[in-house]
Amino acid sequence: MRLRHKPWAREKIEAYPQYIVPKPEDHKGDWKQVFNNDNPLYIEVGTGKGQFVTEMAKAHPDVNFLGIELYESVIVTALDRLIEAELPNVKLLNVDAKNLDQYFAKGDVSRVYLNFSDPWPKKRHEKRRLTYRSFLKLYEDIMPDGGEVHFKTDNQGLFEYSLKSFSAYGMLLTFLSLDLHKSDYEGNIMTEYEEKFSQRGQRIYRVEAQFRS
Amino acid sequence: MRLRHKPWAREKIEAYPQYIVPKPEDHKGDWKQVFNNDNPLYIEVGTGKGQFVTEMAKAHPDVNFLGIELYESVIVTALDRLIEAELPNVKLLNVDAKNLDQYFAKGDVSRVYLNFSDPWPKKRHEKRRLTYRSFLKLYEDIMPDGGEVHFKTDNQGLFEYSLKSFSAYGMLLTFLSLDLHKSDYEGNIMTEYEEKFSQRGQRIYRVEAQFRS
Repeated sequence: MRLRHKPWAREKIEAYPQYIVPKPEDHKGDWKQVFNNDNPLYIEVGTGKGQFVTEMAKAHPDVNFLGIELYESVIVTALDRLIEAELPNVKLLNVDAKNLDQYFAKGDVSRVYLNFSDPWPKKRHEKRRLTYRSFLKLYEDIMPDGGEVHFKTDNQGLFEYSLKSFSAYGMLLTFLSLDLHKSDYEGNIMTEYEEKFSQRGQRIYRVEAQFRS
Repeated sequence: MRLRHKPWAREKIEAYPQYIVPKPEDHKGDWKQVFNNDNPLYIEVGTGKGQFVTEMAKAHPDVNFLGIELYESVIVTALDRLIEAELPNVKLLNVDAKNLDQYFAKGDVSRVYLNFSDPWPKKRHEKRRLTYRSFLKLYEDIMPDGGEVHFKTDNQGLFEYSLKSFSAYGMLLTFLSLDLHKSDYEGNIMTEYEEKFSQRGQRIYRVEAQFRS
C-alpha cells in the first residue's frame, strides 16, 4: 500500500499504550498477563489498516488478537479503529515480523494469519516474502506443535510460491480454496484490500497449513 | 466423456498387439524387453483418445510411453492414432488403473501423468478419484524413490482436493501453476479436452508432486 509520511505518528502511537503494546519483549512467554485471561492468542502479521484483526476480535470474543505492523504511518489507522471499537481482546505491535522470536516464546501464539502480504515478485526478494522458509521457522518457533498458518491473497504468483514453500517445509494443507468468495467457506472476514479487489472480480486464494509435530 | 457402445472394439484391440499390449501382467518387472531399450517409462493413467501420450512420444523419443485406458470404446480411438503415428516408443494398456501393481513392479515406471481425470465430485465417490491416497500408494509402489506425479485439470474442486491429498501423503510440490496457459511453462502438450476447454477461457491447473524417499 502507499505510505505517506506522518510525522505525528510516533507520538500518537506512544499515547495509546493500552492498544499498541510498548516493549513487547517484556511479555515474551507471558502474554496471558497482557490480556488478563487464558484465551488463545492469534496474531496477524502485516495487519495494515486493521480491519481484519478488529472484525475478527469482534466475531471471536474468546480469542485474543495481536495485529503486527511495521509501518508507523499505517498502524495509526489501525489504532483509530481500536480506539473506536473499544475491544478488550485486540491490540497492536509496531515491530518488524522478522524479529517475532524476540517477542514470543514457543507456544505463546496459537495461530498466525497472513492476509494479502506483499508479493515481492522479484526472485532476489524471495527472502522478504512472509511465506519464505525463514518466516515459517519463526511461526513454528512461537506456536505449539501442530500450529497453523492461515493465508489469503489475490496474488497468484505469491500463492503458488507459498503452497510450494509450505510443502517444502513439510507442512500439511488442511484447507484450500482457489476461489474463496465463490466457495462455501463461512465466516470470512474481509480486509480493506480484499473488499476492493474482490469487487473487481479478482479471485481470492486461501489456504490453511499446519506444522507437523 | 460420453461412451458409445462399440461392439467391434474388442476385436480391433486384439488385432493390434504391437500397440495394445496383451497380457501386461507377463511383463511385470521387465518392460524394457517390451520396448527393446533401457529408456525410462512414463505412463498416463486415463489416456482417453490418446492425443497427449502420442504427442509426448513424438516430442520425447528417448522416453517410452504407455497410455492406460479402461474403456474399450475409447481406447480404439487412441489405437487409431498410434496406427497412424507409427512410433516405436508408445503403446497402450486396456486395463483398470486400480490394478496397476499387477502389471508393474517397483521402479518399472519413472513418471505418472494424470490429465483431466474424472473429478468424481460426490464425497461418497472420493475413492474413485485418481489422486485418492490408495491410487497414490499404487503410483509410489511402481516408481523408484522420488518418483513424480504430473497432474493437470480444469476442475477446481478436483485440483484443490488433489493438492490436499498430495500434502497429506507427504509428497513435495515441485511445480505449481494455477493458470497454465498464461504461465511461462514450456513444452505443454495438450489433450483433446484441454484444447476444447481452454478455447472457452477455462483456466488449466497443473502440479508436479514428488514422493519423498
